[in-house]
Amino acid sequence: MISRTMAADLPRHIGEHVTICGWLHRRRELKSVTFLIVRDRSGLAQVVLTVPTPAVALTGAGPAEAALTEETVLQVTGMVVANQQAPGGAELTEPVITSLSGPAAPLPFDVYRPGITAGLPTILDHAPATLRHPLLRAGFEISAASVAGFREALGQQGFTEVHTPKIVASATESGANVFGIDYFGRPAYLAQSPQFYKQALVGVFERVFEVGPVFRAEPHDTARHLAQYTSLDAELGFITDHHDVMAVLRDAFAGMVAGVRERARSAADLLELKLPAVPAQIPEIQFTDAQELMARHLDEDPRGEPDLAPAHERWLCEWALREHGSEFLFVTGYPAISKPFYTHPDPARPGYTNGFDLLFRGLELVTGGQRLHRHADYLAALAERGDDPRPYASYLQVFEHGMPPHGGFAIGLERWTARLTGAANVRQVTLFPRDLHRLSP
Amino acid sequence: MISRTMAADLPRHIGEHVTICGWLHRRRELKSVTFLIVRDRSGLAQVVLTVPTPAVALTGAGPAEAALTEETVLQVTGMVVANQQAPGGAELTEPVITSLSGPAAPLPFDVYRPGITAGLPTILDHAPATLRHPLLRAGFEISAASVAGFREALGQQGFTEVHTPKIVASATESGANVFGIDYFGRPAYLAQSPQFYKQALVGVFERVFEVGPVFRAEPHDTARHLAQYTSLDAELGFITDHHDVMAVLRDAFAGMVAGVRERARSAADLLELKLPAVPAQIPEIQFTDAQELMARHLDEDPRGEPDLAPAHERWLCEWALREHGSEFLFVTGYPAISKPFYTHPDPARPGYTNGFDLLFRGLELVTGGQRLHRHADYLAALAERGDDPRPYASYLQVFEHGMPPHGGFAIGLERWTARLTGAANVRQVTLFPRDLHRLSP
Repeated sequence: MISRTMAADLPRHIGEHVTICGWLHRRRELKSVTFLIVRDRSGLAQVVLTVPTPAVALTGAGPAEAALTEETVLQVTGMVVANQQAPGGAELTEPVITSLSGPAAPLPFDVYRPGITAGLPTILDHAPATLRHPLLRAGFEISAASVAGFREALGQQGFTEVHTPKIVASATESGANVFGIDYFGRPAYLAQSPQFYKQALVGVFERVFEVGPVFRAEPHDTARHLAQYTSLDAELGFITDHHDVMAVLRDAFAGMVAGVRERARSAADLLELKLPAVPAQIPEIQFTDAQELMARHLDEDPRGEPDLAPAHERWLCEWALREHGSEFLFVTGYPAISKPFYTHPDPARPGYTNGFDLLFRGLELVTGGQRLHRHADYLAALAERGDDPRPYASYLQVFEHGMPPHGGFAIGLERWTARLTGAANVRQVTLFPRDLHRLSP
Repeated sequence: MISRTMAADLPRHIGEHVTICGWLHRRRELKSVTFLIVRDRSGLAQVVLTVPTPAVALTGAGPAEAALTEETVLQVTGMVVANQQAPGGAELTEPVITSLSGPAAPLPFDVYRPGITAGLPTILDHAPATLRHPLLRAGFEISAASVAGFREALGQQGFTEVHTPKIVASATESGANVFGIDYFGRPAYLAQSPQFYKQALVGVFERVFEVGPVFRAEPHDTARHLAQYTSLDAELGFITDHHDVMAVLRDAFAGMVAGVRERARSAADLLELKLPAVPAQIPEIQFTDAQELMARHLDEDPRGEPDLAPAHERWLCEWALREHGSEFLFVTGYPAISKPFYTHPDPARPGYTNGFDLLFRGLELVTGGQRLHRHADYLAALAERGDDPRPYASYLQVFEHGMPPHGGFAIGLERWTARLTGAANVRQVTLFPRDLHRLSP
C-alpha cells in the first residue's frame, strides 16, 4: 500500500515529513505562491508551492506545471507546518509532488466550488466524475450509514439477512410495470419485490430482512420513481397484528438515524442535516380518520377515494408535526382495494385491512402490513378479486405447510435519503439511476 | 407481538408457566404419552401430552388430534419442568395448545429426521418448505454470518458500501453469458458484475464494496455455476500493486470466519464445521511456478496452458496444505490472455499480469487483481486485443478524469459457503437457485 497520511490527520503530524495522496481539488495561483488543495476520502489538505515550482515528477507529457490540472491524482511528500488559515490548521510545505494518474481532463463543472453549479442532467450524465463533489458524495455516505444502522437494528432483534432471486417466473406485485427477460429462451421477469420469498422464509427463519435491488418498469417520469431502487425489506412471524410490524419498523428507523449520527457525522455536518427524532411511539392515524380530518380542513373532500394523493401525504405530515411533534406518521387501515391481495383484512372492519404506510416529511417511504397466513384465506382472497389462483401456485404452496401470523414492510432507500438530505429528486441520491430515459452511465 | 419464550430459553424458566411458539417438528406417540417437539428459530422444545389429549383450540376442521400434523404452527402454554432426557434439560407439561396455521399438509420429506432423506431436485423443487430442515437452514446462517463478517472487516478499513445498477447498456465482462432485457423497448442487459461501477467509485470514495446479485447466462450445467449468485465485491485505490488487494482480501476472509464463529456458532456446531485458520500471510504461488510444479509431480504437463483446470486447483490446494499448512492459496501472475483487458500487466514480465485467484479447499473462490488506471493504457490494451474502444466509451471516460492505482476482487458467496459446509453443490446453499433449467420456486 502507498504509505500515506490522511488529509484529516495532518494536524497530528506538525513538524514531521509525511506523504499524502488524493485528487487535486483546487489550484490557486497567487503572485509569489501557489496553493494546491488535495482531496482524499478524509477531507482536504493544503499544499504550499513557492516559486519556482519544486521538484515535480509527472508522468504525463508537457511541462510540469501545466500537468497540474484539477482532479489529477497526486502523491505529495512534504513538511507539515501549523497554519490557522489552512483547512484543519495545518499545511504541507516544501512539497515533492508525483502525479499518479497523468493530467486529468476538465470536468463538466468545478467540483471545488462549495455549491453545485450544474443541473441534474449534467450531474447524471457524468456521474462517475461529478459524484466527487463533496455535497453529492455526502448523500451516499448518509445512505450507506442508514443501511448499516438498519442492519444493526434488525440484527439485534434476531433477523437473518437473506438474498433472494431477482429473476422470477411471473410478476410478483402486479402484471404491469415488469421488465421481461430472455431466460435461456424462456420468458422471465425481473423481481418487483422479494415479497413472496421473504414470506416463505418466515417459515424457515421466522425473521428475515433483505437489502437489495428491486425493479419496476415505471412509466412515470417523476422526481420519486426509478426503474431500479434499493429496497430495505423485512418480514417477521408470530405477530399479533400489524402493530408489531410497525414497532419493528420504528426501531429500524431509530437504527438508521443512529447509523447516520455515528457513521456519517461529517457528511451530515457538511449537508447541515437536521436529523429527525424517532418517537418511541410514532403517531398513527386511520386512513378513514385521515380523510375525515382533511374533509374538515381542506377545500376538497377526499372521503371515498381509495388512496392518498401526494398532496394529502404532505398535508398529513404537516398535521402530524403540528399535533404530535413527529416528522413520521403511520397511516393504517387502508381499504382492501388499494392493497395487494395478500394483505390481511382488519377483522373488525370489513373492506379495510391491516395494511399501513409510513410517511416522512411529506412523502410515503414505506408500505407494509400484516399478511394472510392461511392457505384457505389466500384462495378466498383471490376468488373475491376474481383472480385465477394458478399463476400463484408456487407462492400459495408454502401456506399449505404451516405458516404463522406474519407481516413486514419495504423501505425505499433512495426516498429516505432524498427526504433526509433535502434532495428534490431521488436521482440525486441514486448511484447511476435508471429510469424511462436513462440507461447509462 | 405474541408473548413467548424461545425454545432454547426453557431451562431458565423451570417451575414457571410460559408460552412457546413454533412448528410441530415431530409428534411421537407412545402408549400412555405423546411427545410434541416444537421448533422455533432458537431450537427445539419438548411438550408432553398425557392421555387424554388436553384442551386443544384448533382452528382447522376435523378432530383436534388429527389436526396435529407435523409443520403445523402451534402456540403452547404450559409448565416448565426439568427433565434431563428432554432437549436442553427442560420440557413443557400440562400444555394448552392453539393452532396458529391450521393443520399442515405433509412435506415431501421428513424434516424432523436428523439426516436429509431427499435428493437435491426434491429439496429445490419444494425449497420454501424443505429449507426448514435444520441442516439446510444452518447453511444459510453460515452464509449470513459470513456476509456480516465481511462487511465488518471492510467497514473497519474505511470502505463505503454501495449499490450499483443491475441493468446496463452493454455487457461488462464479455459478450457471452449475458441476459437480455426489454428496457422500455430498448435492448439492455443484466449486469454480470459491478466491475466498471466499483472502479469508477474508487474515484469518489477511494474504497468501496458491494454485496449484491450478479447474473450470468451460464450454459454450464455444473455443481458450481449459477445464473444468479451473490458477489462480495471490493475495490480500493492508492495501492502499490495487487499484493495490497490480496492483503485486504485476507482480512476479509479473516472477518468472514470470525463472523461465523461469533454469529452462527450453533449452526456451525450442527454442521460440525471445521473452520479454517486464515494465515496472517496466505501463501502465494506464481501461475508459471504452479505449472512447473505440476509438470514435475503430475502425469501431465500443464505448462503453456492459459488457465488452471479444476483438477489443477484441487492439486494445488493439497500442495498448499501439505507445504504451508494453509487451506487458502493465492495464485498470482496469470497470463494476460486469460484475464480481462482491464487487468494491470506485471511490469517485470511481459505477457503476464497482476491478476490473481484465491483457491480454498480445491476451488477458485475469488478472482481479483490490480487494474489499469490510466486512460492511455486502456486504449492501448484494447488496441492490442483488436477490440473496438467505442462500446467502452462510458467506462473509459472515468479514466480521463484522474484515477489512482487501484484494484479489487470478487468473492462468490455461494462457493464459499459450499466449501465451508462441505455441500457438494452450490445450489444447496443458494436460496431458490437459478440455472439453465430452474426458474422457480
